[in-house]
Amino acid sequence: MFKMFRYLGEGADIYYKAFPTTWDATSEIGKKRIIKLKETLRKHLPIKEGKALDVGCGTGISTFALEELGFEVIGIDIRKEAIHQAKEIAKERGSKAKFYFMDAKRLEFENESFDLVTLLGSPLPHFSVYDFDEITMEAYRVLKPKGVLVIEYIDTIKGLYSWHRDVFVEGLLISIYKGFNSVEGLEERFFINLNNGTTFSVKFYLWAPWIAEFILRKAGFEVQSHYIREDSFDSGG
Amino acid sequence: MFKMFRYLGEGADIYYKAFPTTWDATSEIGKKRIIKLKETLRKHLPIKEGKALDVGCGTGISTFALEELGFEVIGIDIRKEAIHQAKEIAKERGSKAKFYFMDAKRLEFENESFDLVTLLGSPLPHFSVYDFDEITMEAYRVLKPKGVLVIEYIDTIKGLYSWHRDVFVEGLLISIYKGFNSVEGLEERFFINLNNGTTFSVKFYLWAPWIAEFILRKAGFEVQSHYIREDSFDSGG
Repeated sequence: MFKMFRYLGEGADIYYKAFPTTWDATSEIGKKRIIKLKETLRKHLPIKEGKALDVGCGTGISTFALEELGFEVIGIDIRKEAIHQAKEIAKERGSKAKFYFMDAKRLEFENESFDLVTLLGSPLPHFSVYDFDEITMEAYRVLKPKGVLVIEYIDTIKGLYSWHRDVFVEGLLISIYKGFNSVEGLEERFFINLNNGTTFSVKFYLWAPWIAEFILRKAGFEVQSHYIREDSFDSGG
Repeated sequence: MFKMFRYLGEGADIYYKAFPTTWDATSEIGKKRIIKLKETLRKHLPIKEGKALDVGCGTGISTFALEELGFEVIGIDIRKEAIHQAKEIAKERGSKAKFYFMDAKRLEFENESFDLVTLLGSPLPHFSVYDFDEITMEAYRVLKPKGVLVIEYIDTIKGLYSWHRDVFVEGLLISIYKGFNSVEGLEERFFINLNNGTTFSVKFYLWAPWIAEFILRKAGFEVQSHYIREDSFDSGG
């Protein structure tokens, strides 16, 4: 049988590999994202300096943005390959940011050792409520008493109501709604990568402010909500 | 100015008053709901006898169903008027069920005093995640170690995706989608009561299995999910 497209399976790793330029801190898009994120953070961060922990740092886009704003930053990610890349890029950039392969649910840091913890680049769709609950409690533990947790996320439950069934075209990468499971809290999307003739699926956890806020409050945080942008699918380009 | 319809404001009380036959245990619809609920509970309840607490009992439809199944039942509700009615109806029926005006978030019962706690008639849309969290912890406290919590609810987040913008006609009561706020987790519906020329709004909290399960698990419950019926708006008629 002739197969035009090869199905790669599902998962976040395949997803990130399919958008190399978007997530690579050295690409043109990556560089633009650093600049844009710096602007956003400069405007909205309630603190301007100190020790920062960048959770889910990927190849370092958000970590370098924080460093350039004046923070002493550690980036962590559960994807080994991304951490490897981030370290290489840090060398090239002459960055002092530290990068560690680490699970955000089990932070290897002392209590009250950071002024800022960030979850940037909208990682919430990769976390179940159980994951986010553990991550939030760990963030609370490692933050100093006046520390700040900053989360960037997409309101996907609002999305159910609007763009949910839309087809998205990002260059030659096409994403199509496949299914939605409210027992698990998951949306599934099917991706077609016309660049290399592959397809894959990704399951994204659904999130909305009221659920995130509930979990944050349970962990002990006071919640201040900022809704920065409406263009949920902006990839910084 | 000539006003054809009078706006009564918003709230659960007005909502329940607008459906008197549906929520009244003595009406034809109410009697049918008792029978139907008994059938459902007989099929799905993992225990068959003992002490039961019926949270949000209203005028007693669910409480009488539980009693007829062989439980020794106490019904509580935050609506004084409903409890008053329930007591009257209990007298008429020769029921031994007890009814108390009580806040489910502050149960006036000893630890481990019930075999069963129920939330029937889909009350979750009236509870925020914070309310439900407190109610769940209280239910856990008053349940015996092998006790069971049974919750009947509508998956309104799945509803966002399907019937959310539908107009519902229940006799001469019309309900129209008005707005949706995912920061608060609320849907607002506008009701037109053609029986008496009044209109009102109700805000309903959005719920789906994965959020309810998360809160139940946090409180210490093991969760077994049964999805009994698909016709979310069945009012027992």
